[in-house]
Amino acid sequence: MKIGFIGLGSMGAPMAANLLGAHFELTVHNRTRSKEELLAENGARRAPDPGAAAPDAEIVITMVTADSDVEEVLFGPKGVAGGARPGTLVIDMSTIAPTSARSFANRLSQRGMQMLDAPVSGGTEGAENGTLSIFVGGEESQLERARPVFDALGSTVTHFGPSGSGQLAKAVNQVIVGGTFLAVAEGLAFGVEAGLTDEDKLIPALSAGSASSWALENRGRRFVRGEYPLGFRISLHRKDLRIALQEASRLGVSLPASDLLLRIEEALIEAGLDDLDLSALTKAARGG
Amino acid sequence: MKIGFIGLGSMGAPMAANLLGAHFELTVHNRTRSKEELLAENGARRAPDPGAAAPDAEIVITMVTADSDVEEVLFGPKGVAGGARPGTLVIDMSTIAPTSARSFANRLSQRGMQMLDAPVSGGTEGAENGTLSIFVGGEESQLERARPVFDALGSTVTHFGPSGSGQLAKAVNQVIVGGTFLAVAEGLAFGVEAGLTDEDKLIPALSAGSASSWALENRGRRFVRGEYPLGFRISLHRKDLRIALQEASRLGVSLPASDLLLRIEEALIEAGLDDLDLSALTKAARGG
Repeated sequence: MKIGFIGLGSMGAPMAANLLGAHFELTVHNRTRSKEELLAENGARRAPDPGAAAPDAEIVITMVTADSDVEEVLFGPKGVAGGARPGTLVIDMSTIAPTSARSFANRLSQRGMQMLDAPVSGGTEGAENGTLSIFVGGEESQLERARPVFDALGSTVTHFGPSGSGQLAKAVNQVIVGGTFLAVAEGLAFGVEAGLTDEDKLIPALSAGSASSWALENRGRRFVRGEYPLGFRISLHRKDLRIALQEASRLGVSLPASDLLLRIEEALIEAGLDDLDLSALTKAARGG
Repeated sequence: MKIGFIGLGSMGAPMAANLLGAHFELTVHNRTRSKEELLAENGARRAPDPGAAAPDAEIVITMVTADSDVEEVLFGPKGVAGGARPGTLVIDMSTIAPTSARSFANRLSQRGMQMLDAPVSGGTEGAENGTLSIFVGGEESQLERARPVFDALGSTVTHFGPSGSGQLAKAVNQVIVGGTFLAVAEGLAFGVEAGLTDEDKLIPALSAGSASSWALENRGRRFVRGEYPLGFRISLHRKDLRIALQEASRLGVSLPASDLLLRIEEALIEAGLDDLDLSALTKAARGG
């Protein structure tokens, strides 16, 4: 199957590599073109713009940052919608607002194209190991068409309902991920200040009980060491949290922990710490 | 080995049952005496007061609620300290302040007795299955003496340092547990309000990615259903959180998520919801 893949960031690059490994015919494009090189060495074709990755493709995957990036990649001057054939399936795996996903799906539908929203969870580890959890919104028949692709990228594929519902599940995911990171950051900052500085004792002991989480097991040692290599940029989580808070506000649901987390993230970004991983949240508990 | 066991609550009762199952000779006592009956049917002796559980025992375990309860059980008129022989090892597995643990250890030491603080994590499931994580403070030689007991109760035993350091690790644990519960409660309340009401889709999909946690996997379905059977009483977690916040304040560490959580727990208790499990935190996100 021929696939176009747009967006080779810290998630997109290993995902594209897994598709190559599963013997899909891949044409890749990235705004910073040099990121295409490694994949090209492994057999991918390179496209000079998003539209040029689309003409031959049965499926075009977009894995970019924000709503406006997806819109540009799909509907911009050299976008996918202009280059693709009718019947092409677009799978947007970026994290954007559910309302944007529904709107983009409608606009593609008017051109005879289909779209799934299929954001993911599992971090760069999940992207590299092909063990992502994929949250899918859109038509069931399109999900079946995409199934071989999803199977190469993730270990759990869940169809939540119509267009936008994959992004809704991702918004829920990001609320939980953010709050859990904050809890782990705060607890471990407290522990280190209290003298529990042996990460080889603290992390396994906590992970063996009710405090256990992906954040603790995969990021706990960073919190203890005070090292925060990217990872997952703070401003990217802030974008996701804003989506969730906007959706929650529309529903009349208050999310007090997410409100707090957003304020903490704003403060870290204002302090110039946006080049650190989200695990730098621990600085909030340490008092900056 | 002969063991006295004081405190047969939702954690203590299954822990005592596991010690019986591992063929320790057990004498049990509980303030509400009727809770001794089931263990007596399985071979435990019953003691009318804490002191009466101590005279024959090599080790006396206390698993009660708060600092004042431990003090009463150990040093009250019919307490363990009056009934036990010199050389007896007291293992307090309750969750109390590190300073209280150090003080009780000193007072026992003056009577020729030893003490370990050994609070646990892993919930009622961990207590029932003998898979608790045990956080130990006190002398290494006493931990080795207690090792067969710990092996019957838990799967992970970690020595954090001198007296009080087990309680310090537990305080860190409760900060992380509380924050993670809040994150999961808030995320799932949001998800349900947004229409993602199929727990068989939502919980496994989230658990397969970076949102994964003990709280999500073991309590997630309760959050989705809005059912909160005890469990872990909200006021008990409030007690633990107050210990952590007091210790953090002493260290000059700010714990903003724990501050928020304490306010939410206070509000739930004021609203008369203390007979619910901690998973009722989800009501905060739903707006009460």
